[in-house]
Amino acid sequence: MGEKRIYLDYNATTPLRPEVREAMIHDFEVYGNASSMHGSGRLAHNRVEEAREAVAALIGTAAETITFTSGGSESNNTVFETARVLGSGPDGRVLESGRTEIITTTIEHPCVLNSAEYLKSLGFPVRFLGVDEYGRINLDELESLLSDKTLLVSVMMANNEIGTVQNIKKIAGLVKARGALMHSDGVQATGKIPVNVEELGVDYFTVSAHKIYGPKGIGGLYIRKKAPVFPLIHGGHQEDGRRAGTYNNTGILGFGRAAELARRDLSAYMNHAGSLRDRLREGLFKTIPNIKMNGHPEDTVPNTLNVSFPGAEGESILLSLDMEGIEVSTGSACASGSLEASHVLLAIGVGPELAHGSIRFSLGWGTTAEDIDYTVERTGPIIARLRAMSSVPSARTEERHYA
Amino acid sequence: MGEKRIYLDYNATTPLRPEVREAMIHDFEVYGNASSMHGSGRLAHNRVEEAREAVAALIGTAAETITFTSGGSESNNTVFETARVLGSGPDGRVLESGRTEIITTTIEHPCVLNSAEYLKSLGFPVRFLGVDEYGRINLDELESLLSDKTLLVSVMMANNEIGTVQNIKKIAGLVKARGALMHSDGVQATGKIPVNVEELGVDYFTVSAHKIYGPKGIGGLYIRKKAPVFPLIHGGHQEDGRRAGTYNNTGILGFGRAAELARRDLSAYMNHAGSLRDRLREGLFKTIPNIKMNGHPEDTVPNTLNVSFPGAEGESILLSLDMEGIEVSTGSACASGSLEASHVLLAIGVGPELAHGSIRFSLGWGTTAEDIDYTVERTGPIIARLRAMSSVPSARTEERHYA
Repeated sequence: MGEKRIYLDYNATTPLRPEVREAMIHDFEVYGNASSMHGSGRLAHNRVEEAREAVAALIGTAAETITFTSGGSESNNTVFETARVLGSGPDGRVLESGRTEIITTTIEHPCVLNSAEYLKSLGFPVRFLGVDEYGRINLDELESLLSDKTLLVSVMMANNEIGTVQNIKKIAGLVKARGALMHSDGVQATGKIPVNVEELGVDYFTVSAHKIYGPKGIGGLYIRKKAPVFPLIHGGHQEDGRRAGTYNNTGILGFGRAAELARRDLSAYMNHAGSLRDRLREGLFKTIPNIKMNGHPEDTVPNTLNVSFPGAEGESILLSLDMEGIEVSTGSACASGSLEASHVLLAIGVGPELAHGSIRFSLGWGTTAEDIDYTVERTGPIIARLRAMSSVPSARTEERHYA
Repeated sequence: MGEKRIYLDYNATTPLRPEVREAMIHDFEVYGNASSMHGSGRLAHNRVEEAREAVAALIGTAAETITFTSGGSESNNTVFETARVLGSGPDGRVLESGRTEIITTTIEHPCVLNSAEYLKSLGFPVRFLGVDEYGRINLDELESLLSDKTLLVSVMMANNEIGTVQNIKKIAGLVKARGALMHSDGVQATGKIPVNVEELGVDYFTVSAHKIYGPKGIGGLYIRKKAPVFPLIHGGHQEDGRRAGTYNNTGILGFGRAAELARRDLSAYMNHAGSLRDRLREGLFKTIPNIKMNGHPEDTVPNTLNVSFPGAEGESILLSLDMEGIEVSTGSACASGSLEASHVLLAIGVGPELAHGSIRFSLGWGTTAEDIDYTVERTGPIIARLRAMSSVPSARTEERHYA
């Protein structure tokens, strides 16, 4: 793509930071299998362990609590697989007594929602907590649902579509007080706001490299010491038997380097992304009438702005912006291609029509004030044009129907 | 590591071929999420689909039958997860009637063996077929075990430790004739011998990038059209709902490039690796008395030589060779670190003591005749020294016992 591209879809994925890229290119020369006993193997092994330290440091914990996986989806699935095994008898059936109840929210990432739905299909009692207009769960409602039947509670730390941050520390406190297991999907929070899993008090916490300027195909799962875990991938005894498969050592190294940089630059990132996000919000609200921001105004990651444009259709906005070189999203990339309205926007009470007319702008290190100003400048006319079109009955569509 | 290293552990993992490395470095600039609808996303998507074509072509099939995973272990686990779901009732219990029997072999990779053991623990009837002295299963025995209770048969195409190649086409013919599902772990065969999954007649076939000079952390699973499959990783609708998780597009691109090269250079590879393997075997047998080759003399991949050295201990040989700059393995890297004798060597009738004194040499593109001659030259004295040590009763060990 020769023309200028303004990438505002950092919540979908991020480019490699140059330092990460260089480290990975250098590491391509280290090709030993980290499980091998010879020199090349030991070298690969050492680099894996250094990266584990860096990832652990980013979320305030010790290296031995980090298990590397192929990404956030696998990490989240590992937690639900653990719940499945814990809540099933030796014959595979859901236990009739004991802890089997799963509590999660209606605004989780599809990999949590679909894992929860899968357990539900097996007979696990699963509750999906609703959220308020800002995307926050109700702590009293959670507390009233918790019991000595509760097996696992899974609540994401920051939402991928609207950016809202939950009070995981309070939630974990309630959950642990009832003896249940607490998981938080931290994929969209890590590297964007301070995270300390030990202070949060969770049992499991999911992180992903490609959301923090590291490579795709690598993620991690924090597993509190002594918290139970069962492998999703059975096989060799890598990762203490928690996750089989040859170490993706270059990916792991890139993750480690990205984690180091994210930790070092966290406050600079928050200032950078936050001020540009504010500039974008102010610009859009100043130039486009009748729009609405989705998500919490304060308890949010600094880089995410979700806006509804009544009278315009999201996919049309996305494609029109794309033609201007501006890349945004209508919601989660993992759900894109489907024509359903965002489950997150519906959950916070945005009606189906308005949900269909919403855009997620997510900013990052590469975003500049000029990018934001250009985006504001281009978005207004697009919305005006789409609104004008949608108010005219579409003769062409009807023709096509009868052709 | 400044000194010269002779890497003879290509079955554990391979370095990137320079063309793969260059392609990946170039692709690092393409950071879109392949599920995103904008330009960056579509570009990433197109590269994923090109790579899918290349991987499919390497194993003689069409792109739409290939599902990308994080590697061979995940691919194999996906097949066993599919069997688990197919053989379980809606309540999660193993079906009382219908197909539930699993047949595999005693020489599979740990990720197949442990997946099979896991299903066994759930109550699935699992049979582990033994092998002959060359590592081949008995087709009559397989046929006698097959019935209309058989759900899945999983037999690896080439063994990772001894190189022996099974007659997958005949095996698949027997299995399909009884209506069961046929899986072959092709990780060690692909790129080393001709593979055509459509001709083989299997339902599932596992491939891995890092064994064919591609990156770690990426693999594939061939799923015959209309063969059932259930996801191991629930989530977004990537890979037609067969495998959730953000596309590892750079890894996938590297896999595709490696597959293209492997396909183009297959006969050159077979000549190169085969002639050096013969040179190594002849050199070792000429210079070291009383040694034994493990595996089939003809039905084997061209790059693998497994040798038992009676009177010497495998780990000591490995570490002594490593000090000379020669990197080999005592068995599967995925099982290394454990002190158990190789399950493959035990399965072909090598006694525990001899199995402990065995070394796998696995050769590749980087191997030269000089490397082989140097290895032969160095191995002899190491074996002689270790044999001399082991024939002297170890006073020091006894002292330690009584210290």
